[in-house]
Order: sequence, then C-alpha cells, then structure tokens
Amino acid sequence: MITLTSDFGTPYPAAMKGVMLQRTDARLVDVGHDFPRQDVRTAAFWLREVLPYFPPAVHLVVVDPGVGTDRAALAVRAGDHALVGPDNGVLPPAARELAAQATGDESDVEVFEVEYEDEATESTTFHGRDVFAPAAAAVHEAGVASFHERDDVAPVDGYEDLRFPEPELGDDAAVGEILVVDGFGNAVTNVPGERLDGRASVAVNGESAPVARAYAAVDPGERLVTVGSHGNVELAVNRGRGDEAFGVEVGDAVRVE
Amino acid sequence: MITLTSDFGTPYPAAMKGVMLQRTDARLVDVGHDFPRQDVRTAAFWLREVLPYFPPAVHLVVVDPGVGTDRAALAVRAGDHALVGPDNGVLPPAARELAAQATGDESDVEVFEVEYEDEATESTTFHGRDVFAPAAAAVHEAGVASFHERDDVAPVDGYEDLRFPEPELGDDAAVGEILVVDGFGNAVTNVPGERLDGRASVAVNGESAPVARAYAAVDPGERLVTVGSHGNVELAVNRGRGDEAFGVEVGDAVRVE
Amino acid sequence: MITLTSDFGTPYPAAMKGVMLQRTDARLVDVGHDFPRQDVRTAAFWLREVLPYFPPAVHLVVVDPGVGTDRAALAVRAGDHALVGPDNGVLPPAARELAAQATGDESDVEVFEVEYEDEATESTTFHGRDVFAPAAAAVHEAGVASFHERDDVAPVDGYEDLRFPEPELGDDAAVGEILVVDGFGNAVTNVPGERLDGRASVAVNGESAPVARAYAAVDPGERLVTVGSHGNVELAVNRGRGDEAFGVEVGDAVRVE
Repeated sequence: MITLTSDFGTPYPAAMKGVMLQRTDARLVDVGHDFPRQDVRTAAFWLREVLPYFPPAVHLVVVDPGVGTDRAALAVRAGDHALVGPDNGVLPPAARELAAQATGDESDVEVFEVEYEDEATESTTFHGRDVFAPAAAAVHEAGVASFHERDDVAPVDGYEDLRFPEPELGDDAAVGEILVVDGFGNAVTNVPGERLDGRASVAVNGESAPVARAYAAVDPGERLVTVGSHGNVELAVNRGRGDEAFGVEVGDAVRVE
Repeated sequence: MITLTSDFGTPYPAAMKGVMLQRTDARLVDVGHDFPRQDVRTAAFWLREVLPYFPPAVHLVVVDPGVGTDRAALAVRAGDHALVGPDNGVLPPAARELAAQATGDESDVEVFEVEYEDEATESTTFHGRDVFAPAAAAVHEAGVASFHERDDVAPVDGYEDLRFPEPELGDDAAVGEILVVDGFGNAVTNVPGERLDGRASVAVNGESAPVARAYAAVDPGERLVTVGSHGNVELAVNRGRGDEAFGVEVGDAVRVE
Repeated sequence: MITLTSDFGTPYPAAMKGVMLQRTDARLVDVGHDFPRQDVRTAAFWLREVLPYFPPAVHLVVVDPGVGTDRAALAVRAGDHALVGPDNGVLPPAARELAAQATGDESDVEVFEVEYEDEATESTTFHGRDVFAPAAAAVHEAGVASFHERDDVAPVDGYEDLRFPEPELGDDAAVGEILVVDGFGNAVTNVPGERLDGRASVAVNGESAPVARAYAAVDPGERLVTVGSHGNVELAVNRGRGDEAFGVEVGDAVRVE
C-alpha cells in the first residue's frame, strides 16, 4: 500500500500515480492533495495525526517548496512504515509517531537519502513525478525492511527536523499556540486535552467559553472548547467556524485558564 | 466494496480509510467528501441518486452534526446493500431506493443500532474514524446478509427519518421546491420530468423559459428547463448557472405551468 | 485499469464509478474531476501531459458541453491505450501523444464511434453515467486491441480535432501563447523550454525576468521564468502566482526575447 499526500490539487497527482503504476501493483490511497500550498508545517501536523491509523505502508509526501534546489530526497523507515519525500521537515513528526506506535520508541527511525533516478531527464519543477514517485514505488517493491539495501539509497548525515512548539503548562493557565485550523474552522491548539478535565468552562485569551464533549452540546452558532480527535484542546463553534468566533489563526498564542 | 461519503474535506477521510484498511481488504470507493458541511438533507438526496448505480456494497456515510451526542450509530440493510452512518435521517432515502431496486419494495429495509467499538478510547468529535469506519469494516467482513448476527448489532425501536417534500401536481401548474443545486448551478426540483412532456416552453415562477432536451440546445448563457439525470425538472443555463439566472436557492418554491 | 477525468466535481463521478464497477473489476484511477467546467481545451492539454505517464489503460474523459446534442461518443485506440469520450476535440491531443510514445508515430490512432447502450433509458444531461461509463467498461473488458470488433463500435468518417497553437520562433524572440494556468498560478506557454538555454534572464512582454531552474532559486514573491514539467516555458513566482505577477491569462500572447 502506498499513500499519497501533496499540495498539488489537480492534475499533477495523477502523473505520480501513473508513474507508480508503471512500477508496482500496490494499492494507492490518497491522504489528500489539497493541503495548503507549500505549507510544510501544516502537512507535517496532519500526517502525524493521520498516518498512524494506516496499516504498514509506504507514504509518499510531496509538499516541496524547495523543488529543484539541492535539498535531498529522503526515504525514512519508521517502525513498519516508510515515508518518502523532500528533506524539509515534513516527514519527521509523522515518522516519530509511527516509530513510537510500532516499538514504543519514537527515535526508532532511520533516514536515508535517495539518489535521483534519472538526473538527465528529470524536470526541476516536478520532483513528485520524476523523483519521489519512482522512489516510493522502489521502496514499496523492495519492502520497508530492506529498501535501504538498494544501490540508490544511502544513509544521511543530517536532515531537516521540524518540532511543534510545546505549551507552557502552569498551575493556573496553559499557554499554547494554534497549530492548524481544519476545514470546519476548528482551531487546534497544542494544549493537551486533559487541561479541560472536570471543568465546565475555561477562559480563552481572557474570555469565558463553555467546555463541552460534543459540538452539538451548545446551540448552533455558539462557541465551545472541546478535546479534538487529536487529543488537544480545540476552539470550535457548533455548526460554525471556531477560528472566526475566537479571532485566532495559525501561530497565534492561546492562553487557557 | 465500501463506498465513503462525508463532508470532511481533507484529511479526515484518510483516517477513516486507514482504520478500515486495518480491518478489511475491501475496495474503497469515494462518493465524495466535499458535500455541504453538516447538511444532512443534501447528502441524503445525492446518496439516493448515486448509490443505486453501485453493485452491492457497504456505504459508509458520515455527515454528522450531532457527533458526540447520544444519537445512535446505525447499520441498515437495504436489499443487497448496507449503509452505516449516524441516526439523523441521512440514510433512509437511499435505503428505500436501494430496497426498491432490489426487491421492488422500498420498505424492505432493516435498521440496526451499532454498539460503539471502544467507548473508552473513542473521541467525541470524530466518530467517522472511531465508530463508523470500524462499523463499516465489520459489516463488510460479516456480509450484508448476516452482519445483524454480530453481538454489537441490535435492532432499533425507532430512527430518524427524512422525506423530501412532495410537489403539488395540479392540471395547470406543478408547485414544487428546489431540492438541491449541483456544482454546475443546475437547480434540481422535486417536480417530475414528465410535466415537461410535449412542451416547448413553460412558465417558471411566472417567467417563460424554453424546454430543451440538452443544455446546448439553447445559446450559451441562455436559460432552459430540462429533465435532469435524476428524472426531475431542472432549471439550468447553457454553460452558466441556473440557480443564479432563475434566482432560486435550495428550499425555494417553484411553480411550473 | 480505467482512469477517470471530468469537470463534474461531486457527486456525479461516483455514479460513473458505480456503473463501471457493475461491469468490470478494473482498477479505477482518478485523473481529476475538478477540471475547469466545460473547458475542452484545458482538459485536452492536461490529458496530453498526464496520460503518457500511465501504463496501458482505458481513459474515460467527460468534459462535455454538448451533452444531449448529436455529437458522437468516441472510443479511440492510441498505441496500447484507449480513450473514451465525447467528439469535441478533448481526446485527439492525448491520443496523438500516446501513439507517438508507443510506436513513434503520432498518427497511429484509430477513432471509432460508440453506439449508445440504451437509448430508451438514457438521460440527455448525464452521458458520463449513461453512455461513456458503460462504453469505457465495455472497451476495457474487450481489450484495447479488439474492442473495435464489438457490434456497437463502428469506424467514424470524421471527428472534431483540436490543435494547440504553435509559437513563432524567431531568432530574437519567440511569440507564443498562455495555454493553461495551473493551480499554483504557474502560466504555461507553448514556447519550448530550449529557448531559455544558456540565458540568465529574458524579456517577457517587454519586462525583464530572471531565468531559473527552480522556483526557490529566487526570493519568495519574486518572478521567474523556468522550464515547467511539460518542457515548455513557464511564468512563475516563488511561493506566489505567476499569472498575477506577469499579468497574463489563458489565451494571452507572450513574447519571450
């Protein structure tokens, strides 16, 4: 199984699929191709949340603002999964999560560099098609346990990491940040959901809002603070947009007390 | 085969796919994930129109504004198909249509409640991933004919139904309603297409418009009234938006004479 | 394998999939369903660029502003691929490319007309579901080499062709046209990429812009001229929209000197 994630929209992902289907009969599953364009951090967040729900697979990830520069192409083993994509930080958060899930140790990750398959003919603007899709197919065919034995795969010395900010968890208040806003307008923070345990309401950036287990526990249009599907505190509106009602966007500080 | 329908956009459907692929090798086919958010009626309409074109399958449907409340999770047998989704009316119109197609009897539908697989760990905000996807995989693995024998499946006493309004069909005029507007801007009414038989033009809400078999039978930008692919009267514009040209939106009354 | 291309959005492609899955177990791969509505030329361009990356397959294409008129339904053999779609020009550019790839001869294309499967029940507004999807499944089941032997397939006398404009390639300047703009805002011209060989900058419509191999070779927000993944000159902005920065849209003339 190979999953596909990109910011390509239509029709570039189809070219990647064609390239892979020339090389493998693997099942292809789209994670999504309308991630915010060239937004490495948002893609990294969602991959960390979503990929652990998959059975062992190869995950092709192409959110790649540095395409055509000398940033490396990576193939990463993480537990019984592999990830293939650019060396820009988009892979490590999901890799750590997959490793932790498989072995309990988030550092059980091996990172390799992939040689470009055909430097003569490759484009400099579409490595998804010319570099990463062939690499993902090759990793799949070789297998997660042994793809590193291929001649075109070599260990790397270093790679670009990406870590999400940690919240400050005081006794009275937790100070965190909006990590992403989903398509419903739910604003996802980095504050752990347990901060809401036993509370009927909290103050978010100084304004009180009810704590609720379900969006529909408040009237349509009303604000609520809940624990999202990722386990973090989420600012939401029943049948509306939490980001607008709370006046927050990605990167904003959030104080929950 | 399992089909997937939701209002989730990206990337939540991928989590549902991962969960199912942990449990089944079934083919997964997307009906769509950009249905209007939390709009049970529109999803119910399109499911009724589209699902009968599929071979026997399990249909996972998650348009679920009541997620996390005490609304039940349903598994429905309808002819040789099954549907899995929330108890909010989104399933019954399609279930009746699938039953009628299989046996000629739209009441040949059996509705069951599904116990939540793991109440301890499930989220209250993403039952698509934590409740409905596991249930759809379980129904698929058990088979449409026998999933009701599972321990976690029980008959329900009652369930939320949803019926589309019936038009008033008088001798001179049919008075109906706009049920949905599709992505092209075609406004779909509940008036049966036969009302247009033999007519070159009709009055829609008092204004005359030509009746045509094809959008391109009128000049680009011109209005027409036609029979849509669902068999109902549809208000359209050749290469334009019928909803705007006719000044209608979902729920508006339409008088065709 | 059957690929699907349309301008249908959601949920009409699902009806086509259901219809095909009633008739074949083929793998279905979406090329995309959000191509610009009723824009035959743009779809023809992208199909020509993307389909050659696929292994031999049947390609179902429904961008069909003339649905319900007397335009024919075509099935085209092009090398070891087949294409099925309306006779409006959307298929020939890709067919020529697929033929050239298979045999070196872009004229190795055979065009057939497909009889409508069931004229009594077909709609006049959704031939994707009622005509083209059944035809694509039938072509797939019969095989690319022998589908033309079916009773409902007949040679055509003529068909609608579509040719993209050729650029004027002078010694000092190339005068071409914007063929399409992709989702990133990259404006794709018909000027061959070799025109940029050895140049550090060019004048585009009189204004100088740097030539770069990669988007990220210039600062974010800066304009560049590059060779796109299709081999043509492309007007772009690093992390921005080239169409807006260069003030061009589809069909505009472009002078590169």
